[in-house]
Amino acid sequence: MAIDRTLLIPALKNIATRLRIDSIRATSEAASGHPTSCCSMAELMAALFFAEMRYDPRDPRNPDADRFILSKGHAAPILYAAWAEAGAFDRSELLKLRQIGSDLEGHPTPRLPFVDVATGSLGQGICAAIGTALNARRIKSAYRTYVLLGDGESAEGSVWEAANVGALDALDTLCGITDVNALGQSGPTMWQHDMNQFARRWSAFGWHAVVIDGHDLNAILDALDEARRTKGRPTMILARTIKGKGVSFVEGKDGWHGKAFKKGEEMERAIAELERQLVPESSATNLASQILKPAASPVAVTAPKTVAPPAYKLGDMVATREAYGAAIAKLGESDARVVALDADVKNSTFSEKFQKSLPDRFHENFIAEQVMIGASMGLAARGAIPFPSTFACFLTRAADFIRMAAISNVNVKLAGSHAGVSIGEDGPSQMALEDLAICRAEPNYTVLYPCDGVSTERLVALMAYHPGPAYMRTSRPKTPVIYSNDETFAIGGSKVLRESTGDVATVIGAGVTVFEALKAYDQLKAAGTPIRVIDLYSLSPVDRDGLVKAGRATGGRLITVEDHYATGGLGDAVAEAVEGTGFTVQRLAVREIPRSGKPEELLERFGISASHIVNAVKAFATN
Amino acid sequence: MAIDRTLLIPALKNIATRLRIDSIRATSEAASGHPTSCCSMAELMAALFFAEMRYDPRDPRNPDADRFILSKGHAAPILYAAWAEAGAFDRSELLKLRQIGSDLEGHPTPRLPFVDVATGSLGQGICAAIGTALNARRIKSAYRTYVLLGDGESAEGSVWEAANVGALDALDTLCGITDVNALGQSGPTMWQHDMNQFARRWSAFGWHAVVIDGHDLNAILDALDEARRTKGRPTMILARTIKGKGVSFVEGKDGWHGKAFKKGEEMERAIAELERQLVPESSATNLASQILKPAASPVAVTAPKTVAPPAYKLGDMVATREAYGAAIAKLGESDARVVALDADVKNSTFSEKFQKSLPDRFHENFIAEQVMIGASMGLAARGAIPFPSTFACFLTRAADFIRMAAISNVNVKLAGSHAGVSIGEDGPSQMALEDLAICRAEPNYTVLYPCDGVSTERLVALMAYHPGPAYMRTSRPKTPVIYSNDETFAIGGSKVLRESTGDVATVIGAGVTVFEALKAYDQLKAAGTPIRVIDLYSLSPVDRDGLVKAGRATGGRLITVEDHYATGGLGDAVAEAVEGTGFTVQRLAVREIPRSGKPEELLERFGISASHIVNAVKAFATN
Repeated sequence: MAIDRTLLIPALKNIATRLRIDSIRATSEAASGHPTSCCSMAELMAALFFAEMRYDPRDPRNPDADRFILSKGHAAPILYAAWAEAGAFDRSELLKLRQIGSDLEGHPTPRLPFVDVATGSLGQGICAAIGTALNARRIKSAYRTYVLLGDGESAEGSVWEAANVGALDALDTLCGITDVNALGQSGPTMWQHDMNQFARRWSAFGWHAVVIDGHDLNAILDALDEARRTKGRPTMILARTIKGKGVSFVEGKDGWHGKAFKKGEEMERAIAELERQLVPESSATNLASQILKPAASPVAVTAPKTVAPPAYKLGDMVATREAYGAAIAKLGESDARVVALDADVKNSTFSEKFQKSLPDRFHENFIAEQVMIGASMGLAARGAIPFPSTFACFLTRAADFIRMAAISNVNVKLAGSHAGVSIGEDGPSQMALEDLAICRAEPNYTVLYPCDGVSTERLVALMAYHPGPAYMRTSRPKTPVIYSNDETFAIGGSKVLRESTGDVATVIGAGVTVFEALKAYDQLKAAGTPIRVIDLYSLSPVDRDGLVKAGRATGGRLITVEDHYATGGLGDAVAEAVEGTGFTVQRLAVREIPRSGKPEELLERFGISASHIVNAVKAFATN
Repeated sequence: MAIDRTLLIPALKNIATRLRIDSIRATSEAASGHPTSCCSMAELMAALFFAEMRYDPRDPRNPDADRFILSKGHAAPILYAAWAEAGAFDRSELLKLRQIGSDLEGHPTPRLPFVDVATGSLGQGICAAIGTALNARRIKSAYRTYVLLGDGESAEGSVWEAANVGALDALDTLCGITDVNALGQSGPTMWQHDMNQFARRWSAFGWHAVVIDGHDLNAILDALDEARRTKGRPTMILARTIKGKGVSFVEGKDGWHGKAFKKGEEMERAIAELERQLVPESSATNLASQILKPAASPVAVTAPKTVAPPAYKLGDMVATREAYGAAIAKLGESDARVVALDADVKNSTFSEKFQKSLPDRFHENFIAEQVMIGASMGLAARGAIPFPSTFACFLTRAADFIRMAAISNVNVKLAGSHAGVSIGEDGPSQMALEDLAICRAEPNYTVLYPCDGVSTERLVALMAYHPGPAYMRTSRPKTPVIYSNDETFAIGGSKVLRESTGDVATVIGAGVTVFEALKAYDQLKAAGTPIRVIDLYSLSPVDRDGLVKAGRATGGRLITVEDHYATGGLGDAVAEAVEGTGFTVQRLAVREIPRSGKPEELLERFGISASHIVNAVKAFATN
């Protein structure tokens, strides 16, 4: 921006004051919210939005626009105020803050076109910012990413996962700003105003750290300029600020976090004080009209090519985790939007197959699952189709990110390998037995659980292009290919693998338990007791019609069998689907903390092997 | 230890060699495991177990014994080998590694008396170590805590949460050791052998950082001595090591992570090479016999005093979160084992009530939920009864710790406030709607969800003394006290709040929805349609008998209503409990991503208010 600082500074100062006033008015009207958390960062927002960032207030989703992520999501009112000031919407909307009819929610969500990812769970915005910065590299755009954190937030481990990945990936288009206002929700923050505590950490983690007075606009502009010119590493601007700045009766006072000024005298007193801080400025300095527009992207988007069908042979032994790795690699070759992310288990999840063919779109996060999912959220928000994968049990390390991805409704395609006791000797710490419960709980997640190579490959492609978040569960043991390469699958579908008119019960499995059900079928058939066998590869949504049909044909007797704890998985999914039919659902699942042992020993000991299915069918048939 | 170094070093060197041989034999016999990860840390283990730590191999649970936590749990074989070498059990047991009949599992679990917490999910052991170190302070014991990490593990954010808390709490009885062998599972680690990357991070986080050659026994002993003499902050020894050390054909080679040597020629070659490394030592130097025993604790354990009954008044408006804070403070005054932990929301969860009366047993972790739960695991493992609490939605940040606490079966008593859409304007990022699904999935968690002040106080006391992990869900809104102070509650119990002989259906709520059910009852009663109302305050276990009885009395018509997503919560709990009865369970729950708004607006909009209950009853009654 070419405006002379002598004109720029007064104009920015007034914007900062207006943003404070707007934040106060909105929260007082809502009678809740965090005005003092907004006031500490008003100069930072004014400088970013009106002297630094390239963007179009009328087209916030422009692929080449600079990104701004408010990691301290509770300061939402000043984010909204800044966009209103820039002209994205009418300022009067701000007074609808937190009302059920307004998208100006208590914390930002992507219901708003200028919000990439929902924030409000601290330490997540900076992880998403890693993703938007990686995306700039993917689409060869020069856009920059700015992310604003609170100082209390720096205690979250995920911040340091992001710090490592940002430095390792030399993300010099990424600029963090920490609003060090020294007061948390319930008292002073960990390091209060000891700026060196912040600076030495960020420097140690390989970032360019700059300490400034966060209310000094000249210092802010200089630091942003310095960040833009720093190459080879990201910058963290550490801004010393005063919570409640501008309103003398709350400035730097504890006990004012998350408290709105009372509408009436209290609010008016605060606003009057702020209005007295407005300074004369040149009438020519209309900063909103001078915001620099995004530079056009030099690279056109390539349309995805057709993917060849699977090429497995019936009976081949292939672990679904290996088929997953092969499938994402294949998909990635046909579609430039597909990226893969790992947390140092690529040789076990087989995402190394993607890395080998498409190293530029493969991101190694080392053992840091939170930033892996967080970066995926940022990538997805900017048009990529990210497949982050690790052991399914370690996805729980990022459960809060899985939750926030649901709120953001972004296209993250999670995959978790090594599900259940069937992993064997490594023991319970490596077994995912609650992953289905976690992902199925989110109302907008697609949850898939294939049992063979063909279904894995088909479902990977389906999940990639199904809008919204999705989770695929894969298994460690090799299992035979049971579907032909031209078999079709659907999200919300299922497959009847065995049926006859005399079936006494329906056994429903998924993943490894499909093969236990098939073994039970053989044994029961030999004994003259035919059963129906269903592969319920889609756990959310669930094929209600298919289940009801099978139940009706088999006397309303359903047996579910799953390599998962008894709650929140396949059994609950089936039971809810057939609710109201009067069917009986007998659930075979892992019902205690398991232990090390051979896979087949564990399936047997924890009640989900063929023999348990046979017994359950027999018990059913004699009732 | 008074042994001269010239005698000590050869003896330790031979122990290190034997530990390597034992680790290799055990993993080769099991045909799986991580021998090369054991080999890099053999000198560290030899020095710790035979020249540094005070403990009794025959009484590993001694309250004053030094603690050793293997944060890199995959190196379990060398942990077992060290305890066998110390005399805790016969060396021949080591060959049962990973077998279903042995407690020597693939990763350590507290099934073994010398293991405090299960490890194997990286970045957790060091959080637990914070807890065991805090516990030493609580019981005024001089025991020290040693925790051994892998270098790859340093990428986990939870490690840096622990680093912050360790420094803040000036835990100088805590000594970390990072085994920097430079190779992760799928390739070289983030910083490989650049020791400065580690040292500058730990120094920046306020620890005393010491870089050494991890195979140099003199250097290890010096560093441990330095750590013991360092006051006011914890020490991190950064040990440069070689993965697979001692076996030349795998030393420092990628591709050998998690791979056992093949039994036969490959294993024999490795062992023969190690045996050649044995050195002459004085026959008098039997280090196992010279291990220093724990110093006796100077403070006797005080028996808990009787707790006074609740003192609420029927009809008083009290939020369950506030009653929770009051209850833990009351309990803490009567029992010195009770501690409380916070993540900067103590004024919202009301754990500040505990802090005010018992500041010495209150631990502020700032915004770092993982170390809060991890430290609780360490505290619980050493006899404390920890109550970590935060917003229920932010407990998901520590879901992997919740999972591992289940595997450890430790006495952590989690509490999550601000459950569900009833929090109102703050919006979805602050609403827990999957917390019940996560905690109910774990087979050994007690899950409680009180609706008023009296039941909260009674259930806090019950959960404190019920063995194993537990979770209590509390709510933000004030609700009326409905139970008298002498009302009794039970884990696995429920309360019938309204009943008559003509009830057309049973409505089952918990927490805030109990009051929606009571409102619906009043409306329906006025319209001549009586219903039964149940407060299902115990969600795991569930009062099956009570539910079946109510169902039988009300035509098998059950309606569940919960401020939680439709999966994994109250509805699923009831449905599973009454499975096989033929009852119909109609579930009212939140079925989409919610938004900001007033609490009552949100209950209405997302289908869980009294009006929805009334409609569901009417629809039922007309079917």
